[in-house]
Amino acid sequence: MSQKISVVENILSANDQIAQKNRAAFDQAGVFAINIMASPGAGKTTFILKTMEALQGRLRLGVIEGDVAGSIDAEKAAAAGLPAVQINTGGDCHLDAVMLSNALPALPLDQLDLVIVENVGNLICPASFALGTHLNVLIASIPEGDDKPYKYPGMYRGVQALIISKIDLLPYVTFDMDYFRRGVEMLNPGLVTFPVSAKTGEGMQAWADWLVEKVHSK
Amino acid sequence: MSQKISVVENILSANDQIAQKNRAAFDQAGVFAINIMASPGAGKTTFILKTMEALQGRLRLGVIEGDVAGSIDAEKAAAAGLPAVQINTGGDCHLDAVMLSNALPALPLDQLDLVIVENVGNLICPASFALGTHLNVLIASIPEGDDKPYKYPGMYRGVQALIISKIDLLPYVTFDMDYFRRGVEMLNPGLVTFPVSAKTGEGMQAWADWLVEKVHSK
Repeated sequence: MSQKISVVENILSANDQIAQKNRAAFDQAGVFAINIMASPGAGKTTFILKTMEALQGRLRLGVIEGDVAGSIDAEKAAAAGLPAVQINTGGDCHLDAVMLSNALPALPLDQLDLVIVENVGNLICPASFALGTHLNVLIASIPEGDDKPYKYPGMYRGVQALIISKIDLLPYVTFDMDYFRRGVEMLNPGLVTFPVSAKTGEGMQAWADWLVEKVHSK
Repeated sequence: MSQKISVVENILSANDQIAQKNRAAFDQAGVFAINIMASPGAGKTTFILKTMEALQGRLRLGVIEGDVAGSIDAEKAAAAGLPAVQINTGGDCHLDAVMLSNALPALPLDQLDLVIVENVGNLICPASFALGTHLNVLIASIPEGDDKPYKYPGMYRGVQALIISKIDLLPYVTFDMDYFRRGVEMLNPGLVTFPVSAKTGEGMQAWADWLVEKVHSK
């Protein structure tokens, strides 16, 4: 079993080296980069498009979309007028630093302030692979249920901001917000959290304002 | 890269051998076994508990719960009076045949007709690992969105039944059922599908009746 562990360590170490190069590329271009992670269907793409609207031109945004297959998300982003690149992992359950490194030349980094990377929909694998972004963000959607921090602790531990999405669905599902928040606090004390509804727009302005502040204070 | 591929093949081949042994253990005990897969928060555990109610004692049910961490799901099942075992993968994004093999002795197979295995919440990894169950079932929940077949084709290709869950949320979210079903049909023509709401009970009886028929005709 020790051999298996050492293989994993080598893969992660090689990934970290490429992640550092990605970070250097972002920094050189003056770009702030975010890695957004979530379950399938938590609303990552919609959240990114609504973030663009709430930014109201304060930041020049580009996106990198990660999926096992297809180009639905990049097409949506491009249709909204954003520079967009689609990465297909071909079966891998996460993006890694090499995939991101290969995608970067397709974006006009010098003309951007912010790049949002949408990781593959998954609450497990993406937590293990640094990409070189400045900020890891998790989106937890209300209909997924209040027990997710307890079931996916690695993901909740590794992020610097938490979006609670689809809060417009709270009246229609069972979701104990206190129980959810206790789980989050246990794993990631003081984590900054934004409850939002992309549908009604609630909470999006507070998130966008925080993001602008974050980018400018980098 | 060819070396990497051969390692993966060896792992999968070893897994398939253990899966065959699991199948033999189920068959010897006269047990029908189901592998339920879904995104995090699609409602797998609730669906299993509601299935138990809809079976109305027609089948003796046991469950095996797979999660990265915690024992919330097995506790829920045990509280409902079901023989239940929790598997913690410790970080792996799927169950495999060895984990299932290790869990089987904890269930009184000779006293059961049906074992439901709840896989780790994930639309990617579980599709690659046979467990030895007789039926692979996918739960797709309405709030996840209608584009999931197009994004996670491997999962949709590999199942023999599809549950569309949380249909009570249809009035509150954007979900194009025709678009969703076209994607499913493209990947898995003629797949048997059960739209259900665990909340209202809608559709649960049709699923339970089909399941009883399936178990008895094994």
